[in-house]
Amino acid sequence: MDTNQNELIQMRPIGCVHNEFKEAVFDEKMYSSISQIVLEEQLQDGLKDISDFSKIYVLFYFDRSEDYKLIQKRRYDGKISGVFASRSPKRPNGIGLTLVELLAVQENVLTVRGLDAIDGTPVLDIKPFIETDVAGDGVRPA
Amino acid sequence: MDTNQNELIQMRPIGCVHNEFKEAVFDEKMYSSISQIVLEEQLQDGLKDISDFSKIYVLFYFDRSEDYKLIQKRRYDGKISGVFASRSPKRPNGIGLTLVELLAVQENVLTVRGLDAIDGTPVLDIKPFIETDVAGDGVRPA
Repeated sequence: MDTNQNELIQMRPIGCVHNEFKEAVFDEKMYSSISQIVLEEQLQDGLKDISDFSKIYVLFYFDRSEDYKLIQKRRYDGKISGVFASRSPKRPNGIGLTLVELLAVQENVLTVRGLDAIDGTPVLDIKPFIETDVAGDGVRPA
Repeated sequence: MDTNQNELIQMRPIGCVHNEFKEAVFDEKMYSSISQIVLEEQLQDGLKDISDFSKIYVLFYFDRSEDYKLIQKRRYDGKISGVFASRSPKRPNGIGLTLVELLAVQENVLTVRGLDAIDGTPVLDIKPFIETDVAGDGVRPA
């Protein structure tokens, strides 16, 4: 079965980032900063046992990034590279992925450290980080 | 600025998974299996220098998963937990995330090991995995 690449996939934010950053800076201050992720209240049960994990992946939507560039300078090493060899926000589908420290969970609010997304960023998904996954050749889903 | 949580976000597949798996099994065979990711030809330039990385994150869409459950048994340890504390396909927004080994890149085709997505799965994004990111407290974008 082949998938129709013209198919539109629709998503809805599951929550929203709250922090002090009104625009992206990507400096050390942002990487060590604290954010709250406020989940939609009706999704709160989905957080059950998330505190089993000390790190989580946060998938968010670059809603302030309007277009993409296939070739761009990446921050990692300054190389002019392809967008899929970079974490630039200017990418097809505009999904951001950051591994953060989970500091606290209270009702529908997660407190995390290291989320490089600005205030008001829509959150698309949250997944556990399982230490042993990255130690081997691949990753196992929980 | 607050984001409207009712906002619809639209995405399009950037490519498609090809492998021998017609349905999800999630056994050791699947975790060590080889898949091809065939990127849309017009996005091929976005792969420039991706072979700088030996592992990549593949973000894909669980297009065969029709609904979500907030509470479910997770595979990681069998615990009845929240969907965001699990990697179940039955999740809001249905985004799958797997860290895979990048074996080869030829034109618009990536050959990877360890992708636990079935044949025909739409791919949403590809990102580099940077070893040092997971060693510290958080992750740095490239």
